[in-house]
Amino acid sequence: MLEKSIPAILRRYAGAAVCAALLHVIGWAPQHAAAQGWMPPPPDQRCPSPWGAGDERGAANRQTPQAVLNAVRLIREGKVYELGKLLDASMPRSPGRSFALELKRTNGPNGRNQQRGNEETVYTELGQMGTQFDGLAHQGLGAHLYNCIENDKVATRTGFTKLGVEKVGALFTRGVMLDIAQLKGVEMLPDAYEITVADLEQAMRRQDVDFGAGDAVLVRTGWGRLYAVDNARFMKGEPGIGVAAAEFLARRNVMMVGSDNWAVEVRPNPDPELVLPVHGFLLTVNGIFLVENLDLEGLSRDRVNEFAFIVEPLKLKGGTGSSVAPIAVR
Amino acid sequence: MLEKSIPAILRRYAGAAVCAALLHVIGWAPQHAAAQGWMPPPPDQRCPSPWGAGDERGAANRQTPQAVLNAVRLIREGKVYELGKLLDASMPRSPGRSFALELKRTNGPNGRNQQRGNEETVYTELGQMGTQFDGLAHQGLGAHLYNCIENDKVATRTGFTKLGVEKVGALFTRGVMLDIAQLKGVEMLPDAYEITVADLEQAMRRQDVDFGAGDAVLVRTGWGRLYAVDNARFMKGEPGIGVAAAEFLARRNVMMVGSDNWAVEVRPNPDPELVLPVHGFLLTVNGIFLVENLDLEGLSRDRVNEFAFIVEPLKLKGGTGSSVAPIAVR
Amino acid sequence: MLEKSIPAILRRYAGAAVCAALLHVIGWAPQHAAAQGWMPPPPDQRCPSPWGAGDERGAANRQTPQAVLNAVRLIREGKVYELGKLLDASMPRSPGRSFALELKRTNGPNGRNQQRGNEETVYTELGQMGTQFDGLAHQGLGAHLYNCIENDKVATRTGFTKLGVEKVGALFTRGVMLDIAQLKGVEMLPDAYEITVADLEQAMRRQDVDFGAGDAVLVRTGWGRLYAVDNARFMKGEPGIGVAAAEFLARRNVMMVGSDNWAVEVRPNPDPELVLPVHGFLLTVNGIFLVENLDLEGLSRDRVNEFAFIVEPLKLKGGTGSSVAPIAVR
Amino acid sequence: MLEKSIPAILRRYAGAAVCAALLHVIGWAPQHAAAQGWMPPPPDQRCPSPWGAGDERGAANRQTPQAVLNAVRLIREGKVYELGKLLDASMPRSPGRSFALELKRTNGPNGRNQQRGNEETVYTELGQMGTQFDGLAHQGLGAHLYNCIENDKVATRTGFTKLGVEKVGALFTRGVMLDIAQLKGVEMLPDAYEITVADLEQAMRRQDVDFGAGDAVLVRTGWGRLYAVDNARFMKGEPGIGVAAAEFLARRNVMMVGSDNWAVEVRPNPDPELVLPVHGFLLTVNGIFLVENLDLEGLSRDRVNEFAFIVEPLKLKGGTGSSVAPIAVR
Repeated sequence: MLEKSIPAILRRYAGAAVCAALLHVIGWAPQHAAAQGWMPPPPDQRCPSPWGAGDERGAANRQTPQAVLNAVRLIREGKVYELGKLLDASMPRSPGRSFALELKRTNGPNGRNQQRGNEETVYTELGQMGTQFDGLAHQGLGAHLYNCIENDKVATRTGFTKLGVEKVGALFTRGVMLDIAQLKGVEMLPDAYEITVADLEQAMRRQDVDFGAGDAVLVRTGWGRLYAVDNARFMKGEPGIGVAAAEFLARRNVMMVGSDNWAVEVRPNPDPELVLPVHGFLLTVNGIFLVENLDLEGLSRDRVNEFAFIVEPLKLKGGTGSSVAPIAVR
Repeated sequence: MLEKSIPAILRRYAGAAVCAALLHVIGWAPQHAAAQGWMPPPPDQRCPSPWGAGDERGAANRQTPQAVLNAVRLIREGKVYELGKLLDASMPRSPGRSFALELKRTNGPNGRNQQRGNEETVYTELGQMGTQFDGLAHQGLGAHLYNCIENDKVATRTGFTKLGVEKVGALFTRGVMLDIAQLKGVEMLPDAYEITVADLEQAMRRQDVDFGAGDAVLVRTGWGRLYAVDNARFMKGEPGIGVAAAEFLARRNVMMVGSDNWAVEVRPNPDPELVLPVHGFLLTVNGIFLVENLDLEGLSRDRVNEFAFIVEPLKLKGGTGSSVAPIAVR
Repeated sequence: MLEKSIPAILRRYAGAAVCAALLHVIGWAPQHAAAQGWMPPPPDQRCPSPWGAGDERGAANRQTPQAVLNAVRLIREGKVYELGKLLDASMPRSPGRSFALELKRTNGPNGRNQQRGNEETVYTELGQMGTQFDGLAHQGLGAHLYNCIENDKVATRTGFTKLGVEKVGALFTRGVMLDIAQLKGVEMLPDAYEITVADLEQAMRRQDVDFGAGDAVLVRTGWGRLYAVDNARFMKGEPGIGVAAAEFLARRNVMMVGSDNWAVEVRPNPDPELVLPVHGFLLTVNGIFLVENLDLEGLSRDRVNEFAFIVEPLKLKGGTGSSVAPIAVR
Repeated sequence: MLEKSIPAILRRYAGAAVCAALLHVIGWAPQHAAAQGWMPPPPDQRCPSPWGAGDERGAANRQTPQAVLNAVRLIREGKVYELGKLLDASMPRSPGRSFALELKRTNGPNGRNQQRGNEETVYTELGQMGTQFDGLAHQGLGAHLYNCIENDKVATRTGFTKLGVEKVGALFTRGVMLDIAQLKGVEMLPDAYEITVADLEQAMRRQDVDFGAGDAVLVRTGWGRLYAVDNARFMKGEPGIGVAAAEFLARRNVMMVGSDNWAVEVRPNPDPELVLPVHGFLLTVNGIFLVENLDLEGLSRDRVNEFAFIVEPLKLKGGTGSSVAPIAVR
């Protein structure tokens, strides 16, 4: 299994961003200066992926037996935290997305045993609805998806011929929850607050937790309290990580970044010319998955810092992601 | 946590079935005699559920921290087996069920970072499609669902107000695979072969594996090789457990029964007047879940007898079940 | 072609309603007295239908060649009025109804001619969305649909085995528009205003128009101005005909009643114990169709009183109705 | 209202095709020679449309009051022929198209009147399913739709911002049915038979019928007998008009061309390098609509040559077409 070499990592931080990134490491850099003028590295600097030109799995390559064993070691009580929200019509969603669950008429009774059957149709953006796992076909930068695969060459009417979420498989790895709302002593971070590298580092120190290659990092903003309660505000914007924090996480080669907001990242981005830059940076540049709309309240309440994190995306062939119901187990 | 008392268990085996059941225990009973005239126990004998009259979770009540710890102990290598099949248009399905995944037109490019986004709509019987987890609202006997909840009182156009699959939560427990096809030395069991109690017991002896309360038992028939290959034959009938084997499993208080066929149970039932009797017996009478269309080939190839079994049903509010992508981990 | 005999018509007006109806004819009856205690006639008084016990077409039986010729005579200018509203996401709709139109990715280019193709998926309550034609399976009274056909015997998961909208066929008949908003000198009638028999009669006199067997009567309330403009108010209630006016129309054996509101009838009904009584009275008791959410502004502007009315319901097998785009031609 | 000038018409027949077209007029041209090497005229020769650079309605501009009056004159008996097929799961369709109609659970009973309500969800390619009307956004040639509107500039996820079928309106015009199967004395034309100009002309003479600007021409192949009976054969190929016959029809400035097959045109095209060339030629080059899967059996049985043809496409905003239930009236 290949891991990113240092030069490969550096190639990811083009131009001014390289300096900023290095400054971050030594704890100096003002976030916003770093963000100004930020651009994702161009194709020749970000491709091929460290897992090879043909790779379609990105950071799922970090899902090794050792990752499972690292996670299993954290299961001491057998306590399961459900991190998935309900899938129903109360979900917040972007304009133009649907969710309809229609219960069919009950079948039967059939046979001597008077068997009756129920089932339901669901119409929805199944890859991108509710608590969701973002796969590598979900986002592109210009003409390209992850590993510089050309979007229009692999997108068909019925899904992607490459990078479909069915390539990922279940992810079972060590999870770490960084509770930024708690760090700041608030119920939820302010609208459009950008979580900084310093915030992450302080939370790590305060919670006495670290993370590294192959881990899942879940960032708690408190914003999830608005989910299905005040959907208009929930969707209008959100506190979340910015580009600098995403770079910080990517440098540590995590497998996934999750949050209790809609997009993991701050919206709108402080740089008004960037649209969802963390999506492109994590998914497209680094092959790192996003997990959105997580319910992190239980973990926060119990001060759970690390745990086994298990997510089983549906094997939607050619899909861009999957609604999921992940768990944390300790 | 309540467990079934012996009288409660016995109440489940009405009339002639009680004798047959007892005979099974001592290894005498001819299966087909047992099945003749079989009827599920009537409401007054099967309700309330051992978990109380208000219970909506059935055997998910057996999902305890201890069940997790029992499962975790089996993870020694960190090896993950994907038991879910692909969700795509090639899936076998009953007439009248649909699966359509439509990739939307790519959004963007937006912003200086030229962000582009992809997503898909899915229209399908999401609770009952592909590798699937059957919840307690999926099946009824006459007017009633599990725990004698009246179907028509809880069924609404947009789902069930009770017994919805969102009540179950993730299941993480010890799994056992009984490889009946291998026991018989065949690639797949014959069409409509009824797996007997004796078959299960022989497989247990041969594989040197046992199971008990809260476990998931996966029964391999080999039938899954036809899935998406010869759908007409796959759907027409299938080898699987019959009523007697289901009773044998229910007496041991398992949490789930899974298989690599479409319905877990033999189809058509040898008793031509019974329609899907194992469904009603396990789900409605006993609150035991079914997991269908599993891919058990990897476990069979590697002779994996026991493992941690983890399944995360989508939290479809009011849903009858969920497409899933479960894993076995050892 | 059978027409209703007088006794058959009288049978439709049970108990107190008969007196009230007669009083209406001579212009005396206070509407609300009439409405108090109103009940639809019971099955034995309303069935069989005047078109026989096996009839599934109701007032579509009034669609005769003569009806076409009567309508054609009114076409003198060849001017077409489009009475259908746009089908798009801006449509007002009941909670739990959906409308999603997703354009597929463009196919091709194929061949030397560089052919490319486009198409769209639509998910919606197609029988009951936008400008819509209500068929006979749409409404029931207790256990029964039109002609006392038992709802649960003909309702299947994929449609009705009887009374489906595909039985109706295209309707091409004389149409009359009664402009009640104009009569009252208002842009739109007040919320929940019940249009009375006297209102209809005054409009008929003022517009110098009459109608009879097989005609389509379109009642303009002005309420349609709120459609897709203030959907919350549009759906909350509406001015429209009440039971007495519906009786008046049914006695004249019309084929359809249409309006520029959501339900043709006043909502909520002044009698708080009645739910959509005009629906049941016209569709279920009399087999008379409803056409809702019509755009009657052009006809009103041009003071068009009578015209050829042509509506082509989609032949949704077993459907309850159809989105339509009817026209008036003069 | 603009009509095509002669030069505008000629511009449509580029290169070798011009000669061939002229030869056709005088009845000499061998069809296949004409078809060899055929190409649709390039953008600069086909645009702007005769109705101006901004036009989005194509041949619907020929829908004038006079067209209605011409049609009305043909209605002498008031007899209505239903030309639409049933919309249900038995419909033939291309791979990847869906049709699901799900009847909801019956609502109610509500109120003293025990009101109950029914409705259904439908999921389908509504613009392109069953008897269907093809709008101008349905087909493109290279980058362009009708009137050289750039496909990718007007295609959004939720429909076309230009050329949507809602721009067309109802069409009510003179219709002519050319019965080629009857002309040839067969129940249906052979698979992949190309209907020639000579065939059309012979049918016109034999049926003593002519047609011109603004008319709808319906070409009967007999192929419709396979519809919902032998869908595999129905879809595999079909007899229909070829490019030369389409040119013949376009020169006469018809409004629509319909047929009882799936694509109006012969499939596969005799020139193996052309894909659906008649679609592109009629829709994209000439703005002439197609109406497919018509039921022409009644008209054929009764030897009805001309009639009023009325089709009311649903007003799907931004849609590529519409399922329809057109009628012929005489």
